[in-house]
Amino acid sequence: MPLHRQISAYFISKISSGAWPPGMRLIPQRELCRQLGVNRSTVVTALGQLAALGLIEGSRGGGTRVAASSRAGASGPDAAARSTGAAGQLGGNWNDYVEEGIHYPNLPAVQAINRLEYEAGLIRLGTGEPAPGLLPGESMRQVLLELAQNPLPPLSYEEPLGSLILRRAVSQELSKNGIEADPSSILITSGALQGLQLIALGLLPRGSTVLLEKPSYLYSIHAFQSAGVKFSGLPMDKDGLLPDQLAAAAIRSKAAMLYTIPSFHNPTGILMDAGRRDALMDIAGGLGLPILEDGAYQDLWLDDRPPNPLKARDREGRVLHLGTLSKAASPGLRIGWIVGPEPVVRRLADIKMQTDYGASSLSQLAAARWLEGGYHEQHLVLLRGKLRQRRDFMLQLLDIHFAGLASWNIPAGGFYIWLSLNGTLSLRRLFKAALQAGVLLNTGDLYDRSDSRHLRLSFAYASEDEMDHGIAALANIINNQMT
Amino acid sequence: MPLHRQISAYFISKISSGAWPPGMRLIPQRELCRQLGVNRSTVVTALGQLAALGLIEGSRGGGTRVAASSRAGASGPDAAARSTGAAGQLGGNWNDYVEEGIHYPNLPAVQAINRLEYEAGLIRLGTGEPAPGLLPGESMRQVLLELAQNPLPPLSYEEPLGSLILRRAVSQELSKNGIEADPSSILITSGALQGLQLIALGLLPRGSTVLLEKPSYLYSIHAFQSAGVKFSGLPMDKDGLLPDQLAAAAIRSKAAMLYTIPSFHNPTGILMDAGRRDALMDIAGGLGLPILEDGAYQDLWLDDRPPNPLKARDREGRVLHLGTLSKAASPGLRIGWIVGPEPVVRRLADIKMQTDYGASSLSQLAAARWLEGGYHEQHLVLLRGKLRQRRDFMLQLLDIHFAGLASWNIPAGGFYIWLSLNGTLSLRRLFKAALQAGVLLNTGDLYDRSDSRHLRLSFAYASEDEMDHGIAALANIINNQMT
Ligand SMILES: Cc1ncc(COP(=O)(O)O)c(C=O)c1O
Ligand SMILES: Cc1ncc(COP(=O)(O)O)c(C=O)c1O
Repeated sequence: MPLHRQISAYFISKISSGAWPPGMRLIPQRELCRQLGVNRSTVVTALGQLAALGLIEGSRGGGTRVAASSRAGASGPDAAARSTGAAGQLGGNWNDYVEEGIHYPNLPAVQAINRLEYEAGLIRLGTGEPAPGLLPGESMRQVLLELAQNPLPPLSYEEPLGSLILRRAVSQELSKNGIEADPSSILITSGALQGLQLIALGLLPRGSTVLLEKPSYLYSIHAFQSAGVKFSGLPMDKDGLLPDQLAAAAIRSKAAMLYTIPSFHNPTGILMDAGRRDALMDIAGGLGLPILEDGAYQDLWLDDRPPNPLKARDREGRVLHLGTLSKAASPGLRIGWIVGPEPVVRRLADIKMQTDYGASSLSQLAAARWLEGGYHEQHLVLLRGKLRQRRDFMLQLLDIHFAGLASWNIPAGGFYIWLSLNGTLSLRRLFKAALQAGVLLNTGDLYDRSDSRHLRLSFAYASEDEMDHGIAALANIINNQMT
Repeated sequence: MPLHRQISAYFISKISSGAWPPGMRLIPQRELCRQLGVNRSTVVTALGQLAALGLIEGSRGGGTRVAASSRAGASGPDAAARSTGAAGQLGGNWNDYVEEGIHYPNLPAVQAINRLEYEAGLIRLGTGEPAPGLLPGESMRQVLLELAQNPLPPLSYEEPLGSLILRRAVSQELSKNGIEADPSSILITSGALQGLQLIALGLLPRGSTVLLEKPSYLYSIHAFQSAGVKFSGLPMDKDGLLPDQLAAAAIRSKAAMLYTIPSFHNPTGILMDAGRRDALMDIAGGLGLPILEDGAYQDLWLDDRPPNPLKARDREGRVLHLGTLSKAASPGLRIGWIVGPEPVVRRLADIKMQTDYGASSLSQLAAARWLEGGYHEQHLVLLRGKLRQRRDFMLQLLDIHFAGLASWNIPAGGFYIWLSLNGTLSLRRLFKAALQAGVLLNTGDLYDRSDSRHLRLSFAYASEDEMDHGIAALANIINNQMT
């Protein structure tokens, strides 16, 4: 079968099965050529055949769509009913629905990154997860073996707060960072992200304001904005949030909560020092301002152990503390936790039951074994060593290629270096040019809409070879684009 | 230490750590006695000590609360700021927040059931999950062993639609029920419940209406109501939804979607016959009405294989189909799927990435092995045999104890018998009296707010002994309460 026939046959099967419903917009011809690895004329021939069959048609906004009348039954009286949308409030067409719903879509850039992260061959200079080689494949295998060698408890629905065995193990783990929390104060979540989602949906009324560092990880996700919550950004310096601005900002914005990442902040890598932590707790205490502390990177210190979390300084139940196994152990386990006052944690557990009936009990069992069996401690030591080496390597490359182009911090932990370019440029253009050169970037505007001169670099993901190549290529592009 | 001192010491530790924050309502004295297994005077003494210390106080609405000034730092100028709620929009007190948020709490009855299901010793006559003994502990162990015997792929974040290996296995599985779906039309979710949540948040605008069977599982969860979606119930008979009412209802309510459980409906156990399925697809086609088909119990037929799902009759991309491993394999895996047109599935995947970055990859790996390795097929055969026996046993018990008291259907699959009492009574009172007698019930009002004469019985959970005892006790109570 000639190539163009293969392509049209593929399209016909998608359209006739309903996988591509009437009205669906096809991807642009150029992108189609790239994905199928064929030249333009082949695609044009194939699309011509489909148009001749009445299966696709030009769309008003430009581009091509699956024809509204592509369905067999679409020519009878039914079609009339459908096109007037007799019943469907939205015309009864899924395509319209895709634009509806109360949840915002991810930023186009975030969607693109989510998709591109699964394309092979790209150098991922910004990815916020450990490289596959840093994940404990072998000791996770041990954990599974241990689980499989004993009779497996039935994998039933778990209780609302999550597996008691895991909550005990987490409680133990938290005490190493000075946090005293009973299992009854701990809720197991499907990663810290779900914790944020639950808090956004369960604790904050629409229209309330959350104070946070600017830039912040929270700007790059939509949990809070989709719940109708507003953000008010606070400045930071090399030692973290500036506490002397907090009170005024909180009163001015009638803030409902402060969100902060005190240890190895995402995206800046900044570590809040002990003095700031105390000051922050004092001021929040005076204001009656609840705090949401994100401890995702707490254990990933590379030089010295960081000061204890805010939660360890809390005797009032003022702080909700988030933790996760994603950054140090395995993102794919999807295990995180929320520590807080019992009534708050119970309310969040109730919403969690409504959302997905709790985190995977297999993951919970594995996570409990992982913590209890000492695997976590052991792995952390190894991981810190490897991350330290990667950080130092990336810093060297920056010295070589970015002196004069940008400045940056030396992070004491976590995954990130926050690169401040010496001039401004269009971060969208930079993203595209880098992608063309095979480099996937996390640009600063993901973490602060108004940003136009930062990049979040991650030393956790790309290999040394890739960093070497990628940082050089990046410097080159920036040199060309920066004004 | 005397008992009352132990109790007050426990309270003091909870209050001083902040786990019980200022203003938190304590559970009533009677319930406290029950939980601690002590008599009233002990509790009264302990509470007296705490009141004397200023740690608890009577609350306006009656009952007792943790004192607003229970905190050390609470007596300085800070306290003044706090009590006027200088910053906190809500007074800066988590207790207020627990009542806020855009997500509804579960019905009190559902909350009670969720909690009570983890109390030992109760006979659970309504529980919608397989008893631990019906879960495939041994073959899940085999699955883990297989996973552990090969190098484990790194447990990274998965791609937005979920693991490709699992989507291939699900696609294979679906084809057995006549559904042809490429992996690109399948989204893996953390159970079917999360699928419902994503659809509610991602596809339906606030204020839209969903048609559904009355009663329905959907009334017992809050995914749609919390997204501002309204319900309009349709009548059913022993062969399912009545199709001749559909068109009028859809037009009258400007329905955005029809939700249906055609096979072994929850809570009624009803199986929609093939004629109805065809009629429904025809009418929905004419109306341009999208359909959400919940296939949670599809494979749990006990007598004959049911007609193919609606999705198997769909060539227009009109049907979104939900499936899950919870009912036949393991609820704790938290693995379900949505099958639908690619643009719809991609939109839902985007929201899923925002919600929790995808289902546990360990669960996804295990589920793929479970399906591919033929464990699922094998287990289904066993499970059907056991469920058939349980169903028949429960039907016998009903014949003995409920003749003259109620009528019921003989379900051809699934877990449920829908008991229609011959008279009315207060379902709340019945629930309480049954609980007193050690029997946990799922009353009809969970599935239809206006119901006052049905119970959802499940033959999947309680043991034969428990059924024997429970059904007799239940008949007794009903006999006493029914007018
Ligand atoms: C600061 C911070 N919090 C939370 C998360 C969410 O992680 P997970 O949901 O995998 O636990 C991340 C991951 O990127 C993060 O950087
Ligand atoms: C009809 C129906 N749909 C969906 C679900 C959700 O199941 P899960 O989220 O465990 O897959 C249930 C479980 O009770 C159900 O009865």
